[in-house]
Amino acid sequence: MVEGLTFASRFDKVTGSAIREIFKYLAKPGMISFAGGNPSLAALPDEICAELAHDVLKADGKRILQYGATEGYPPFVESLRDYLTQQYDFDWELNGLLPTTGSTSCMDLVCKALLNPGDAVLVESPTFLGNMQTLNLYQAKLIPVESDEGGVMLDKLEEAIQQHHPKLFYVIPSFQNPSGRTLAADRRKPIAELAAKYGFLVMEDDPYRDLRYTGEHLPTIKSYDKTGHVAYMGSFSKIISPGMRVGYLVAEKDILRKCTIGKQGTDLHTPNLNQAIVDQFLRRGLLAPHIESIIPAYKEKMELMLKELDSFPAGTKYTVPEGGLFIWVEMPETFNATEVFQEAVENNVAYVPGTHFYPYGGHHNTFRLNFSNSTPEQIKEGMEKLRKLFEKHM
Amino acid sequence: MVEGLTFASRFDKVTGSAIREIFKYLAKPGMISFAGGNPSLAALPDEICAELAHDVLKADGKRILQYGATEGYPPFVESLRDYLTQQYDFDWELNGLLPTTGSTSCMDLVCKALLNPGDAVLVESPTFLGNMQTLNLYQAKLIPVESDEGGVMLDKLEEAIQQHHPKLFYVIPSFQNPSGRTLAADRRKPIAELAAKYGFLVMEDDPYRDLRYTGEHLPTIKSYDKTGHVAYMGSFSKIISPGMRVGYLVAEKDILRKCTIGKQGTDLHTPNLNQAIVDQFLRRGLLAPHIESIIPAYKEKMELMLKELDSFPAGTKYTVPEGGLFIWVEMPETFNATEVFQEAVENNVAYVPGTHFYPYGGHHNTFRLNFSNSTPEQIKEGMEKLRKLFEKHM
Repeated sequence: MVEGLTFASRFDKVTGSAIREIFKYLAKPGMISFAGGNPSLAALPDEICAELAHDVLKADGKRILQYGATEGYPPFVESLRDYLTQQYDFDWELNGLLPTTGSTSCMDLVCKALLNPGDAVLVESPTFLGNMQTLNLYQAKLIPVESDEGGVMLDKLEEAIQQHHPKLFYVIPSFQNPSGRTLAADRRKPIAELAAKYGFLVMEDDPYRDLRYTGEHLPTIKSYDKTGHVAYMGSFSKIISPGMRVGYLVAEKDILRKCTIGKQGTDLHTPNLNQAIVDQFLRRGLLAPHIESIIPAYKEKMELMLKELDSFPAGTKYTVPEGGLFIWVEMPETFNATEVFQEAVENNVAYVPGTHFYPYGGHHNTFRLNFSNSTPEQIKEGMEKLRKLFEKHM
Repeated sequence: MVEGLTFASRFDKVTGSAIREIFKYLAKPGMISFAGGNPSLAALPDEICAELAHDVLKADGKRILQYGATEGYPPFVESLRDYLTQQYDFDWELNGLLPTTGSTSCMDLVCKALLNPGDAVLVESPTFLGNMQTLNLYQAKLIPVESDEGGVMLDKLEEAIQQHHPKLFYVIPSFQNPSGRTLAADRRKPIAELAAKYGFLVMEDDPYRDLRYTGEHLPTIKSYDKTGHVAYMGSFSKIISPGMRVGYLVAEKDILRKCTIGKQGTDLHTPNLNQAIVDQFLRRGLLAPHIESIIPAYKEKMELMLKELDSFPAGTKYTVPEGGLFIWVEMPETFNATEVFQEAVENNVAYVPGTHFYPYGGHHNTFRLNFSNSTPEQIKEGMEKLRKLFEKHM
C-alpha cells in the first residue's frame, strides 16, 4: 500500500466477489463452466443491437451523445413506464422510476439512500453473493433468514424482524439466485404487510422473472405495496444483454429522489445510448418475441442438467426450478464442495461452492450450477465429470 | 417519507447538485444557457458513433453484449494504455488502469476506497460542485485552499496539510472548473512531493486537458509521482461524448484494486459497447483529428465571450483561460450574482452563481460562464442581456 494511506473501514470485511475471482479460472481452454450467471451467447441479440444502435444514433445522436438527465433518457423512461404498466400493477402516484446502470446499481443506490454502518439487513439464506458484497461495502449487519422450498419462511422472517429491527429485507422472488426457488404466492402479500407494519424496506430483486419455463407468473411483492415499503429492482441483463448494463428501480418517490441524488455522485446518469437501444426493443415490440425465442433452449438445458443430476450419488438433493438460470445442489453433510472445487477446475469443470452464498459461510455441502451458458454437449460432459469426481469423494 | 424509514446520515448535508437543479430552467423555450458544462452539439460525433457502434457489434457483438470484466473490455484497456503511454509519462510498473462509467465514477470509487466519515479532503477554492457532492456523500470534511491565477497556492496548501492531515487533495489542473485557470507548471512537481511527504492522495481530475486553445500542454502532476500518491482521472466526455459515460482511472495498483472491488458493487462493469466505441476512436486514429476539428469553434466562442465581457460594468474581473469550457467572473463585492440569477432566467439567459462552487458558500459576487454550448449569436445576445441586467443592479 502507498505510504501513509489506509483504506476506508468499509473494506475491512470485503475482499472482492468470489464469483469474479472464480471467473479467472474460466479462461482456461477447454473449461466447462457451470459457475457464472451468464446468458447463453446464442441468446444475445447482437444483430438486432447493431441495427438498433445505428438507428438510434442516426435518429437522435446529438441528444444521445450529450449529457443526459440523471432521471433517465426521456423516451426510455416513457416506454419503460408503459411496459411496466402492461406487465405489473405499480402505483405511479406513489412511485417513480429510475433507469440505472444495471440492477447492481439499484442495490448500490438504495443502500446509499438508507443504510448507516451497522444497520441490520435481512437476507435470504442462501442469497446472491454480489449484492451481499454491496451490502457489506455499506457496512450492513447481514441477518440470514431461513428458506424452504417456498422461499423465505414467514415465521422466521417475523422473528428476525422483531429481534433485529432491520432497515432492509433483500429478496429475490423468482427463480432465486442461487437456489432456483420461487417465493410462494401466498408469502408475497404478507411480506409487503410486514414491511409496512414494522417500517422497513423490501428490496425486491427480480431479474429472472421473464425467464419462466413452466407455471404462471406470480404477482410481485411490490404489487401488494400501498405505502412505499417495497422497492422493485428490474433488469434487462438476462433478457437482452448484461454487457449493456441497463436496469431500473421502481420506488416510492422520496426514496427514489434520494437515489437520484446519490446517482448524481456515482455515474451522473446511465449512458443514453444503452437506454436508447433498450427503448427501441420496447417500442418496436422486439422484447416479447426475443424472450420467447430464447426460452426453449434454456428450458431444454435445465431439463438436461436435472436429468444428469438424477444419477448423482445417493443423498444428492437439488431444486427443480420453474425458470431462471440456476440449480442448487445439496450433497450429504460429509461432502465438501468447497474443497472439491479445486479438483473440479483441474478436471476442466467449474461450479460455485455454495458457501459463498451464505453471509457467514459454512454449508460446504452445497453448490450452485448454471446451465444457461453451456451447450447440451458441455452439460452432459461436465456433469459426467462432476458425477465421477463426487463419487470419488463420497 | 415512508413511515418508519429514515435516510442515511450521509444525506444530512446533501440536497442535490445545484447545477442539475438549474438544468430544469434550461428547458424553457428561448433560453440562452451559459450554465451547463455541455460540449457543443456540433462537436458530438453522431455520424462516426453510429458507424462505430454498428461495426463493433457486428465484429464482436457476443462479447460486447455478454457480462464483461470489472477491469474493463480487454481491447479498450489495451488501446487506452497505448494511447496514455503516447500522451503521458505514467509508470505502468507502479500503476494500473481502470475504465469507468464517466470520471464521476472515478471520484466515487476513490472516495469509496479511501474515505471514512469525517476525513479531511482539501479542495481548490472554488472547485467543481458535482464532485463536492460526491465528497459530501462520503461525509468528507472539505477544506478549501486558496487559489490565485496560477491555481492552488503552495504555501496555503502546505499550511492546510499541516493543520488538517488530509486523506485527499482534489485538484483540476487544466482550465479548471469553474475558474478556467491552469495550475502553473512550477506548482505541479511540488504537489506530488507534498503528497509523498505527508502521505495523502492527490486526485488529479483532468477532463479538459485536450481542449487547449493557446499555449503548450503542461506535464501532469501524476507524471511526477514516483510513489503512488497521485491518482489520475481521465474522461472522454469533453472530447468525444459525455452521454457515452466513458472515463478512466490511473492509480497505484493496490488503490486501483480496491476501486475495482468497489466497482463490483456499484455497476459491476462499465458497459462494453461504450468502451468498444471509444476503443475504435483510438484504434482508427479518429480522436486526434476529431479534437482538432472541434477546437477552432470553441476558441472562437471563448474569444467572443471574453470580448463581450470587456464592456461589462467597471470593476468586472474575469479569467482568460487557455482552454476548457468556462470563464469565471468576479463582480464588485456589492453585486449579488446569486440573487440576480432568478431575474436572468426570466430574461432567458442563465449562468451558474459562483457560490455553488465554494464548500461553504458565500462569494455571491462571482459566477461561471460556459461558452461551448451556445452559438456565437447566442453568446452576443445573452451577454448583451446580462450586461444590461447587471448594469441595472450595480
